[in-house]
Amino acid sequence: MTHMLFVLAAAVAAATAPTPAEILEQSPADAWRDVAPGDLLLMDVGDRHRVAIELAPRFAPAHVGNIRALAGAGWFDRTAIVRVQENYVAQWGDASGAVAFPLGFERSVKVDYSLGGLPPAFDALPFADSYAPATGYSGGWPVATDGRAHWPVHCHSMVGAGRENPPDVGNGAELYAVIGHAPRHLDRNIALVGRVIDGMQHLSALPRGTGDLGFYKTRAERARIGGSRLASDLPPAERPRYQVLRTDSPTFDAWVQARANRRDRFFVQPAGGIDICNAMPPIRRIAD
Amino acid sequence: MTHMLFVLAAAVAAATAPTPAEILEQSPADAWRDVAPGDLLLMDVGDRHRVAIELAPRFAPAHVGNIRALAGAGWFDRTAIVRVQENYVAQWGDASGAVAFPLGFERSVKVDYSLGGLPPAFDALPFADSYAPATGYSGGWPVATDGRAHWPVHCHSMVGAGRENPPDVGNGAELYAVIGHAPRHLDRNIALVGRVIDGMQHLSALPRGTGDLGFYKTRAERARIGGSRLASDLPPAERPRYQVLRTDSPTFDAWVQARANRRDRFFVQPAGGIDICNAMPPIRRIAD
Repeated sequence: MTHMLFVLAAAVAAATAPTPAEILEQSPADAWRDVAPGDLLLMDVGDRHRVAIELAPRFAPAHVGNIRALAGAGWFDRTAIVRVQENYVAQWGDASGAVAFPLGFERSVKVDYSLGGLPPAFDALPFADSYAPATGYSGGWPVATDGRAHWPVHCHSMVGAGRENPPDVGNGAELYAVIGHAPRHLDRNIALVGRVIDGMQHLSALPRGTGDLGFYKTRAERARIGGSRLASDLPPAERPRYQVLRTDSPTFDAWVQARANRRDRFFVQPAGGIDICNAMPPIRRIAD
Repeated sequence: MTHMLFVLAAAVAAATAPTPAEILEQSPADAWRDVAPGDLLLMDVGDRHRVAIELAPRFAPAHVGNIRALAGAGWFDRTAIVRVQENYVAQWGDASGAVAFPLGFERSVKVDYSLGGLPPAFDALPFADSYAPATGYSGGWPVATDGRAHWPVHCHSMVGAGRENPPDVGNGAELYAVIGHAPRHLDRNIALVGRVIDGMQHLSALPRGTGDLGFYKTRAERARIGGSRLASDLPPAERPRYQVLRTDSPTFDAWVQARANRRDRFFVQPAGGIDICNAMPPIRRIAD
């Protein structure tokens, strides 16, 4: 990422450097990638509040295969938000354990919580991290690496597959989204399956559960899930379109450096650094 | 913190190391400090949802003096939550600008966003940070330092004093709490005045505003503030009592290391590190 250093030098030199928002406004079309309809999980929370999740099949292929099977069958529509723990997660699934799984669903799937080798197509962040020797992006997803292996990281809005104590019992039928400060101690301990790319507030602003670990104590507290499906199962004209800023684009490098060294009028002291979870790739929805 | 290294070695050696929760349960009484009633700001949000804030006078003495004057006059009771921005802040104050300030309030106060020298009574965290050469605790508060100066940091639940673009226009009449991932780029740019130590969910689960920066568009969306006062203005029998784990206690060191190297049954891979905002000093309320 030698071009990052040039961007940094330019930002320091120019008192009128563009703000992060201006950098995005001026970005070329090819700095953005489309979210594939087959990776776009849509669901409603409670009163038709739409949440959109981009799935990350590379990190947990069997879990994502299960999630696609569940979404295709409308299985999540018979589930609810069962847990909202302050500064931690909102979690949904079938609390009764009674909703039959569709064909193609595997109850027990294995996952490698970390993947061997350096991250492929790695765009490194040039700043220190409290949890790993290096962080950055692989195929656009936030990852950490120790040089021998790499793994996706638990930033705000990331979606994981809940499990019990044995490490191989998660299967994608119980999902959670991070709603608070990044719980990075979960990295390499739970399968991450995607990221909420729209409607995060419909999960994060839910009432907190008052039971242990933020579980709701009564059925009445649970918000229903509805309308769950993959965008690829909708007619093309009805599919919402999202784009994610490519982490291998000069626009992304400039945006990271502008975020790490804020020169907007408000700021008196640029930070000089940024952590991976404050540098999640920007998302935009393309108008219908 | 050489004793931290011994704790680390012990944790690695012992397969049955205590969990973070067990460490707190077994803590001696002298590992905890009382929150002083004169530093304990109480307020209700909306339908009498109590929020408790510990003030940090050392970092922003004039702001905290103003906040004490406002609380003593019940001034915040004529204000409301005006802004809730997803993954950022909940903010309250007098949106009308019409509520008269009490005696003792100073409209314009100066603050040093960073304080000279190393942090006094510094308990360093032995892990890297993305934003500063070192982080830790000073007098129990989370701080960062570059060796020449130190400053409090914007972790989840920290409370700051909103301001406009000129750096010296904040005065404590407009406050915000961090409700998402730590926005550390605000460090050294805004006065931090305290930390929410109870009732955080009454701020973080509020509906997000749909205006620019999460401001509510209509008056009807705003949750009223009520019952604001300092605990020291209540009769002693009515004061809630809180304690914060002392960051200079062996219990705190053991808790940090257990959080950085989780060995609870759930975990398969300890992180080996932790960031300052995932290691905020634990709080407990003493039963009445």
